[in-house]
Amino acid sequence: MNAKKLLANCRARIAPHVHNTPVMRSRQLNERAGADVWLKCENFQRMGAFKMRGAVNAALSLPMDARQRGLVTHSSGNFAQALALAAQSIGVPATIVMPSNAPEVKKAAVRGYGGKIVECEPIVDARQRETDRIVAETGATFIHPSDDLDVIVGQGTAAAELLEAQQGLECLFAPVGGGGLIAGTVLAAEAHAKPVTVFGAEPWNVDDAFRSLASGVIQDNSAGADTIADGLKTLLGETNFPIMQRGVSCILRVSEAEIVDAMKFVWERTKLVIEPSAAVAVAALFQPNHPCQQKRIGVILSGGNVDLGDLPF
Amino acid sequence: MNAKKLLANCRARIAPHVHNTPVMRSRQLNERAGADVWLKCENFQRMGAFKMRGAVNAALSLPMDARQRGLVTHSSGNFAQALALAAQSIGVPATIVMPSNAPEVKKAAVRGYGGKIVECEPIVDARQRETDRIVAETGATFIHPSDDLDVIVGQGTAAAELLEAQQGLECLFAPVGGGGLIAGTVLAAEAHAKPVTVFGAEPWNVDDAFRSLASGVIQDNSAGADTIADGLKTLLGETNFPIMQRGVSCILRVSEAEIVDAMKFVWERTKLVIEPSAAVAVAALFQPNHPCQQKRIGVILSGGNVDLGDLPF
Repeated sequence: MNAKKLLANCRARIAPHVHNTPVMRSRQLNERAGADVWLKCENFQRMGAFKMRGAVNAALSLPMDARQRGLVTHSSGNFAQALALAAQSIGVPATIVMPSNAPEVKKAAVRGYGGKIVECEPIVDARQRETDRIVAETGATFIHPSDDLDVIVGQGTAAAELLEAQQGLECLFAPVGGGGLIAGTVLAAEAHAKPVTVFGAEPWNVDDAFRSLASGVIQDNSAGADTIADGLKTLLGETNFPIMQRGVSCILRVSEAEIVDAMKFVWERTKLVIEPSAAVAVAALFQPNHPCQQKRIGVILSGGNVDLGDLPF
Repeated sequence: MNAKKLLANCRARIAPHVHNTPVMRSRQLNERAGADVWLKCENFQRMGAFKMRGAVNAALSLPMDARQRGLVTHSSGNFAQALALAAQSIGVPATIVMPSNAPEVKKAAVRGYGGKIVECEPIVDARQRETDRIVAETGATFIHPSDDLDVIVGQGTAAAELLEAQQGLECLFAPVGGGGLIAGTVLAAEAHAKPVTVFGAEPWNVDDAFRSLASGVIQDNSAGADTIADGLKTLLGETNFPIMQRGVSCILRVSEAEIVDAMKFVWERTKLVIEPSAAVAVAALFQPNHPCQQKRIGVILSGGNVDLGDLPF
């Protein structure tokens, strides 16, 4: 099925469970970016991030009997909350495998949305093993946070709504973590009637997507690589990488200081609470040599879940 | 002229210079308030607060020759920035009298909007003396931050837009400082086709408006009284007090802890950056015994100007 049809079906399917989020503007942000910018405010999405879209779409794309047996994923970030709330929203059970050392506040959020938490050892192998065990024992369906076409199409509805709400956009910017949002954004651009160039933005510290696109092979990050944009530490997958290869024009990399500065600018000037991962895309536009000078740019502000007790400013 | 006519004329007059700000909803906020709440987001207003409305209306209500001679006010808060930006927006000069110990960040904001700053000694008498001197020397017109009918009507356009955007509101909540916003909100309620009850919200620490309405005489605050909602430390005036007397149902008082808690809730759950003064109205709705249980309530989120380097959480 082509991108246009996929997205149209998805939008109709998820509409009762997600917000068509507002698009905001800021004169001061335009001046600093040297461009005309429209901000797609996924920080206002249910559970505070775009991930709700993909989670709902993946859940609703399952046959009814599979849905009823439940959903399971492993995540300690926004997708954990998204799958829990998506499941609650459509009335099926969800189990979230989280490392035992995940912050209590994130566990509480998952529980608040009715998700069941199963803890695993905080090592990479353990979470998949635990997930496989739950699938085998309960018949629940595993939904990957980013490397799943239904998830990718769901995430793409944010860009699709933005392109529809604001005619004439020439470029789209989105942060790159596991690749679900940026691949979905590529699909939305492909589905659009007019040409739209898609750019990704990524922290220098975890620039696996930049290196993956440069080399043509999915790359890892060095052990212990860290960034304040903790949602972007995940790696690309076999489903989203080929979509990125054909549709992402380039990936702009930003420093930790640029992320914090952009986040502060957005909070202060636009009065929007955004998380560091969302600030990454704005930071790319604040680089004086960015490739979209004077262009009409859509930016996906991916989310707004922050710990107010642990701010970088 | 009646309230309806005043507001309609004002809205037409200021429309090119102010935003008709968005109205937002939050399921979690509704649950906590035990009511159906619509948030009028004046944090998204130009210069970050509702004060832009009154400043523009007062400026545009002057004869052309008076306007050209310039505007002057004394303020170290949002009205300083509002008058500077209003003047810049309509192309006339503005002078802002600020105490010499005003924070540099506030002076920089006024300068950023093209305002000329004249410093005075940080004592109450000095600011009016300095203002009078500028008026005498330059022929500029003094505009009071809150005790001026044109300013009051301007501030009332926020509530008028909200009542128009969301039919069926039964109550309006606004914070009370100098009384401009709450008096304007009363006018908007009076202009509305259906009955709307107006409530004010005020910090316990500076509850001069509560005591003024109770006693029928404008009251002062005790020397040195302080609150995190620093925009609400100002006193009522002869123009707005009678309007409040006839139209404010009651004033709810909130503690400093309640203000910080409400501000944190709004930032975390609604992703809106609001200032402590705006949180005061929300805090009133979070009191378990508030008088508008299950009602349809409009809340004026008065502004979003905060110092991110000095947050209470």
